[in-house]
Amino acid sequence: MQLQTKPEFDFESYLLARRKLVEDRLALYLVEQEPARLWQSMRYSVLSGGKRLRAMLTLAAAEAIAANKNIDGQQKLDPIEIALPCACAIEMVHAMSLVHDDLPCLDNDDLRRGKPTNHKVYGEALALLAGDGLLMLANEILIEHSKDVAATDLLAVVRELCRATGPSGMVGGQVKDMEFTGSDDTKFDIATVESIHSGKTGALIRFSLWSGGKLMGANETQLASLYRLGEILGLAFQITDDLLDVTGDAKTLGKTPGKDEATKKATWVRAIGIDGARQKLSEMESEGITLIEKSALDISGAPVLKALLKYAIHRQK
Amino acid sequence: MQLQTKPEFDFESYLLARRKLVEDRLALYLVEQEPARLWQSMRYSVLSGGKRLRAMLTLAAAEAIAANKNIDGQQKLDPIEIALPCACAIEMVHAMSLVHDDLPCLDNDDLRRGKPTNHKVYGEALALLAGDGLLMLANEILIEHSKDVAATDLLAVVRELCRATGPSGMVGGQVKDMEFTGSDDTKFDIATVESIHSGKTGALIRFSLWSGGKLMGANETQLASLYRLGEILGLAFQITDDLLDVTGDAKTLGKTPGKDEATKKATWVRAIGIDGARQKLSEMESEGITLIEKSALDISGAPVLKALLKYAIHRQK
Repeated sequence: MQLQTKPEFDFESYLLARRKLVEDRLALYLVEQEPARLWQSMRYSVLSGGKRLRAMLTLAAAEAIAANKNIDGQQKLDPIEIALPCACAIEMVHAMSLVHDDLPCLDNDDLRRGKPTNHKVYGEALALLAGDGLLMLANEILIEHSKDVAATDLLAVVRELCRATGPSGMVGGQVKDMEFTGSDDTKFDIATVESIHSGKTGALIRFSLWSGGKLMGANETQLASLYRLGEILGLAFQITDDLLDVTGDAKTLGKTPGKDEATKKATWVRAIGIDGARQKLSEMESEGITLIEKSALDISGAPVLKALLKYAIHRQK
Repeated sequence: MQLQTKPEFDFESYLLARRKLVEDRLALYLVEQEPARLWQSMRYSVLSGGKRLRAMLTLAAAEAIAANKNIDGQQKLDPIEIALPCACAIEMVHAMSLVHDDLPCLDNDDLRRGKPTNHKVYGEALALLAGDGLLMLANEILIEHSKDVAATDLLAVVRELCRATGPSGMVGGQVKDMEFTGSDDTKFDIATVESIHSGKTGALIRFSLWSGGKLMGANETQLASLYRLGEILGLAFQITDDLLDVTGDAKTLGKTPGKDEATKKATWVRAIGIDGARQKLSEMESEGITLIEKSALDISGAPVLKALLKYAIHRQK
């Protein structure tokens, strides 16, 4: 007699399905309008693929809170429909940050994910304005399309998105990164690296998880857990990035490794070495998994957040 | 025997007092934080003076609606305290648009209001990021500091600010402007000029008036009047700008006139000539004044909106 086993959670299929959901919705929000070149330029960068990790985190957080709510017998809400506009807004802000980062006055990159960067295709002026446009469009879409969310909660989410993206968040981190890039090894320590990345990549990743919960009306304890998980994930994501720049191979990465070292970026590897970075990463993974289990943040039968954490750490690109 | 006369409305003193109010509040919102150079760069452009016309419009609209409300015996609200965060947010967005406009890849201007442009002082990278930061900070401040406003009204105001600023508003207008700059006279007509400026300068001016009303809980009729007055004011402001570029003198303007002609900008003067532009301006003035009177939008005893309309039209710089 064969025992009936619980079906395995197929993370690959999950990722594919979720990504398609996000891509389709983004394409809908970015239907070409006048002026055509501006919308084409925005579409070019937003719809150019990518891991969509941030969107995945928002949807997973919303689902985790929904699963808990439904267990509690509260009103059944569709977490995906509620969180999808926010997930898309986050991807638009992320895409925008890459467009401006790639500009000649910042990183001066010609290629992004194996394709010419936005300004290489549309020119610098349009790339600049497409970035500006995406920043405001992201907020507009978040407000316009978030249904079944209390107005005060939605206001809090918009405010946090602006905070995560603005001078105290992503933009502030980019400036710090710029200031430290090119400096000698001795001029920065762990606190500096942590402060740069807490803004540059961390703020939006923290917001991704927190917002998924907030939109679903998560309680303060749940929000605090999501926020801490966001910190862990943001750190883990960045340390992995820094490690891949040293240990990854060009073919898998889709870009040339070694750029951090060449431009003297303030990275985790330069601050604490390869072994130190791997050690830190392993600690983050353990803490994250414990937190997810303790906070009942996994959707029953589908360890999505755990899988996303492992994915952020063990990816090869 | 001398008749007791109503005290004259002193528009100059009014402007000075209101400007000080806005400048002081902006300085407070932009208190220097880390990273210091980023905040200095944002402060440099936001606190560099200017007419503050947009902020004046928001405050005046809020006061006009408050005056009407108080007549109706409804709850007394302080329109200035309610509208000031929004007025400041608008000035920040406006400043940000000038910072990005001045960048080498767009207008490549070295001077703004007689001072070196942001990128001349802080470098292109920081000017780019300061602009991005201001865009998000404006929304954050609007949400954080608007008190005594219903959450649904505040959400509507934030959404409209994003719309007015984004690809369908200011940014879209900038792209259209860019596309038509340098083209032959025959390639554009009134509709083109109107469409460019309706986005580039009009959207934020319309929003300035509308938002002042919306934050004060104006009714639909009042909001429609404020919106139309915004259209009129936006047009009048732009036509005056275009005329001054042809008829103004360098000393009063604080910049060299004739730039529109030299760079073949799509202006009202190039579309319908100096006389045509003056005629259109005169029509806008009449329609605006009639609208203000008909809609009871003047604060009792203080014809602020009329004075602002005349100011936008009859200024010499």
